[in-house]
Amino acid sequence: MGTIVPDLDLVVSEIADEMRARTDRGAVAHYIPELARVDASQFGLAVIDADGNAAVGGDADIPFSIQSISKVFTLTLALGRYGDRLWRRVGREPSGSPFNSIVQLEREQGVPRNPFINAGAIAVTDLILSGHQPREALGEILSFVRFLADDETISIDEAVAASEQRTGFRNAALANYMKSFGVLENPVELTLGVYFHQCAIAMSCKQLAMAGRFLAKSGRNPSTGLQVIQPERARRINAVMLTCGHYDGSGEFAYRVGLPGKSGVGGGIFAVAPGKASIAVWSPGLDAAGNSHLGRIALEALSKRMNWSIFGA
Amino acid sequence: MGTIVPDLDLVVSEIADEMRARTDRGAVAHYIPELARVDASQFGLAVIDADGNAAVGGDADIPFSIQSISKVFTLTLALGRYGDRLWRRVGREPSGSPFNSIVQLEREQGVPRNPFINAGAIAVTDLILSGHQPREALGEILSFVRFLADDETISIDEAVAASEQRTGFRNAALANYMKSFGVLENPVELTLGVYFHQCAIAMSCKQLAMAGRFLAKSGRNPSTGLQVIQPERARRINAVMLTCGHYDGSGEFAYRVGLPGKSGVGGGIFAVAPGKASIAVWSPGLDAAGNSHLGRIALEALSKRMNWSIFGA
Amino acid sequence: MGTIVPDLDLVVSEIADEMRARTDRGAVAHYIPELARVDASQFGLAVIDADGNAAVGGDADIPFSIQSISKVFTLTLALGRYGDRLWRRVGREPSGSPFNSIVQLEREQGVPRNPFINAGAIAVTDLILSGHQPREALGEILSFVRFLADDETISIDEAVAASEQRTGFRNAALANYMKSFGVLENPVELTLGVYFHQCAIAMSCKQLAMAGRFLAKSGRNPSTGLQVIQPERARRINAVMLTCGHYDGSGEFAYRVGLPGKSGVGGGIFAVAPGKASIAVWSPGLDAAGNSHLGRIALEALSKRMNWSIFGA
Amino acid sequence: MGTIVPDLDLVVSEIADEMRARTDRGAVAHYIPELARVDASQFGLAVIDADGNAAVGGDADIPFSIQSISKVFTLTLALGRYGDRLWRRVGREPSGSPFNSIVQLEREQGVPRNPFINAGAIAVTDLILSGHQPREALGEILSFVRFLADDETISIDEAVAASEQRTGFRNAALANYMKSFGVLENPVELTLGVYFHQCAIAMSCKQLAMAGRFLAKSGRNPSTGLQVIQPERARRINAVMLTCGHYDGSGEFAYRVGLPGKSGVGGGIFAVAPGKASIAVWSPGLDAAGNSHLGRIALEALSKRMNWSIFGA
Repeated sequence: MGTIVPDLDLVVSEIADEMRARTDRGAVAHYIPELARVDASQFGLAVIDADGNAAVGGDADIPFSIQSISKVFTLTLALGRYGDRLWRRVGREPSGSPFNSIVQLEREQGVPRNPFINAGAIAVTDLILSGHQPREALGEILSFVRFLADDETISIDEAVAASEQRTGFRNAALANYMKSFGVLENPVELTLGVYFHQCAIAMSCKQLAMAGRFLAKSGRNPSTGLQVIQPERARRINAVMLTCGHYDGSGEFAYRVGLPGKSGVGGGIFAVAPGKASIAVWSPGLDAAGNSHLGRIALEALSKRMNWSIFGA
Repeated sequence: MGTIVPDLDLVVSEIADEMRARTDRGAVAHYIPELARVDASQFGLAVIDADGNAAVGGDADIPFSIQSISKVFTLTLALGRYGDRLWRRVGREPSGSPFNSIVQLEREQGVPRNPFINAGAIAVTDLILSGHQPREALGEILSFVRFLADDETISIDEAVAASEQRTGFRNAALANYMKSFGVLENPVELTLGVYFHQCAIAMSCKQLAMAGRFLAKSGRNPSTGLQVIQPERARRINAVMLTCGHYDGSGEFAYRVGLPGKSGVGGGIFAVAPGKASIAVWSPGLDAAGNSHLGRIALEALSKRMNWSIFGA
Repeated sequence: MGTIVPDLDLVVSEIADEMRARTDRGAVAHYIPELARVDASQFGLAVIDADGNAAVGGDADIPFSIQSISKVFTLTLALGRYGDRLWRRVGREPSGSPFNSIVQLEREQGVPRNPFINAGAIAVTDLILSGHQPREALGEILSFVRFLADDETISIDEAVAASEQRTGFRNAALANYMKSFGVLENPVELTLGVYFHQCAIAMSCKQLAMAGRFLAKSGRNPSTGLQVIQPERARRINAVMLTCGHYDGSGEFAYRVGLPGKSGVGGGIFAVAPGKASIAVWSPGLDAAGNSHLGRIALEALSKRMNWSIFGA
Repeated sequence: MGTIVPDLDLVVSEIADEMRARTDRGAVAHYIPELARVDASQFGLAVIDADGNAAVGGDADIPFSIQSISKVFTLTLALGRYGDRLWRRVGREPSGSPFNSIVQLEREQGVPRNPFINAGAIAVTDLILSGHQPREALGEILSFVRFLADDETISIDEAVAASEQRTGFRNAALANYMKSFGVLENPVELTLGVYFHQCAIAMSCKQLAMAGRFLAKSGRNPSTGLQVIQPERARRINAVMLTCGHYDGSGEFAYRVGLPGKSGVGGGIFAVAPGKASIAVWSPGLDAAGNSHLGRIALEALSKRMNWSIFGA
């Protein structure tokens, strides 16, 4: 509309500075012991624009535990392999409940509401595992993320995975519950093993923004020009991120930020400005709904200053 | 991206023809007796593009009961008057429940989840009523809709309002429940009286698409050039429509159509392609979630052919 | 078993003394303004044994608002008139929820779980009202209570009834909700009018213990020798009191007191030792579940000292 | 009251004959594969009166899987060892939900409502296990049952235990869920191992009625004269059986039978007429709430003919 396009590098570095200066940081997730030790003062932001240019600020090269952001990659992988049959195992409606709620599963006969709450993500991982050994399934997930990010150094933090395996009783409850309804195919402990490891993938903001480029580019990986997933499926993954990507804070995120995104309890948030940018932000302190406190604030500022909201100029 | 822009008039008339030919039409809402009599074979579609051009198809000039679509107009009116204080009375998260569920109200102390489920809309109407007589409040709502649509002929179908008043026990339950928590200020019967009448506003697709233009134009009414609401608020209303506009079918609508929208049990759906178009569709038969069956299918086709999804090309 | 039978008069007067000395009294119900003014220091106890002897202690002659204890009398009246058809309108299972919960109604299509939660009692009153004017229905309830107690002076506290009518939004929500499912036959405001008045019947412990004698005597009114209700139905009313008579504190009451009973938010509790005694206790302060705090403690002491638990010597 | 006492032997044999003649038998539990194979036409009834006389009818000597009836014995054992501290881990209110519901656990922070739903019984078993090896804990439970029944031949059906271990995902969900809230102390798989084995104890009606005598005799084992548990605790176990012993059919059982009782999905029901008799009935077909269909009908007939209801003559 003839308005001056703001300079992305400048905006990113301003936001990184502003976030560094803030003292409200939320609380680091405590229920995974290994994550509780992370230094809460860190903040990173990375944006890859439509032309492939990267703008970074703060601790954008420090790897963190992507946790639930991994659900975006496993959903993409499973949709590529199973197509719309995937939706027989998992819905695509917001849950109106916290990330680890089991109430909805009882009401809906073990079928999770969407692939971004824990139960739904476990069901997606179970699909990926079917017909494979856990090691193979995990290898496939990791290879896929490395391919998307064009970075072979991405790896799994075994200490985090082990920490989660020791303490993940709530996820074990969800998995056993779905198993009792026949929603999972594989032995519960194998599915959970893969799930805990995919959540323990460690990536920096830079790597994460790189890995998510295909969702800003109609499903194409700009590094290789390969179509990762059909354009329609890419749009639909963005739609599910918008409505379900932040648990019971999804409405708030849409309202404030106006971009599809997915958060993780490690403090990362991945977001997409369709056609414009792939974005990753990281700050370990969480808000009451379990989403990165400063991460959301930074994305709100970025979306506003760059005029990227999908809901209008 | 250099692709040929499809001709809107052609697309609209094709879709109207396709919808007329379909035999799957859903079921007309039966719980409001007056609505149950509507002829289910009707279909209308109207689109106003960014330049103000109208494309219409089918029964686009026949008025129908807008029902819950009125919630978009009352939310706009109340946000204009109360600003963000409105959000003390109502949340903005998807509910994960049917439109008339009361369970969530018990869990959350009488505060409705969002302004687009019945409880939330009643709370918004109660705010508009405060300090006024019901007749004045209703007059204000009607005047606002007429102003937005630039059409003084829009009116209320008193038979529908009376029918709802006689049978609206579920809404009376929601209102009394909120009243017991102090969420409503006015006498329950007065608030409900205004609410039932606002739902009974009758508009054609053409009038509805006209009335909604401001949400496609950053809050501005193109007829008058007046700023109806701040650009940021317009974006945010679109965001709430996207996450909450179709009750427990909101995720599905976002997934398939990719546009913010609001449905009504009269069979209408209003949708916005931000920056591009204001859209209204009408077909009285509903799907299981209470949203227009053909309306949703028509919008999915329109969004796809015009490449309007907010989630990517 | 050859044990010495304790002296009832002595036990009753000891318990009244002990209760007078206690300082923990719970909190007087505040949500009905008129009840909130009652002096919390009062305590009354009355027991009528199988031979018709009365033992009284404390403020046993001061009338109080019987509130939900009235549900025992309306259930008896409706069972007498409709027989087992009554159970099509209301269940007889504990609810696992507070007295005024609406969640269960949504899950079970408007059919209340039992006749002793508010929703269930309103449904029973609606049955009694059917085919009558509210004044007649209310007259019938009052006459029935007077007949049972053999006392024509029992009356309704109009100030309490009016107070409840002005503030009973939660009950109005329950009634409208049931009406929306067709569970109520009469206009909601008429059914609620009768209900609020039956709850406002004022009785002393002495009068209440007299009125309840038939439930200790296999359904017979000892004053007149008339069979009020069949013996099997009397047993069954006792059974429903045991499992459902204290809302979400019913298990606790059974565990501690071991007698069928029904509490009211006015601080009264009516209890039955089948074959042995009809009991009424009153202390206005309530516990967290909405039952009289000292009332329950007094009944626990009485049941223990008199060896009256129905669960064994 | 001077009425003729009916002959117990005659009543028991009449009821056995009547039940044999009935064709409505409910459906055998199918979710534990090993139980699904049981012959549905079997029926047994055994009553031990206050003087120790046994009256038996039908298949009263055929062992069946006692399943949830074991919860009565583990509750007794744990109360004996931990006293009222046990109630910190588990409540004593009816749940208003099916036997394997997990919804309540989420609402109440992992603390099960009562010791007779699955979650509560698993929590009780976890207490018994604490400080022991699973083999020891299981040995203690089995020894206790043998001691109560005065019968060393009672044993565990390993095929049933193994069947349950392979398919008990719902119980694994409950256990992991409680573990996530810290309600269980031991490793989930060990607690579940003991639990599945205690449920697989096989007993005949005769053995079961013998084992339960202490609950009819104020906590005393008549064989040995030993006080198994204090009289007050025996009464209270009876109270919890009355309010919670039949899952979401507890109200119905109290209403129809009028005796404390505990059912199991193997088709057994144990019941107590305090001071009068210990009763066991068995018929494998279940009703909708998961309780023995003919078992309940037989107990209703027995209670009525013997005039044993605790709710009045």
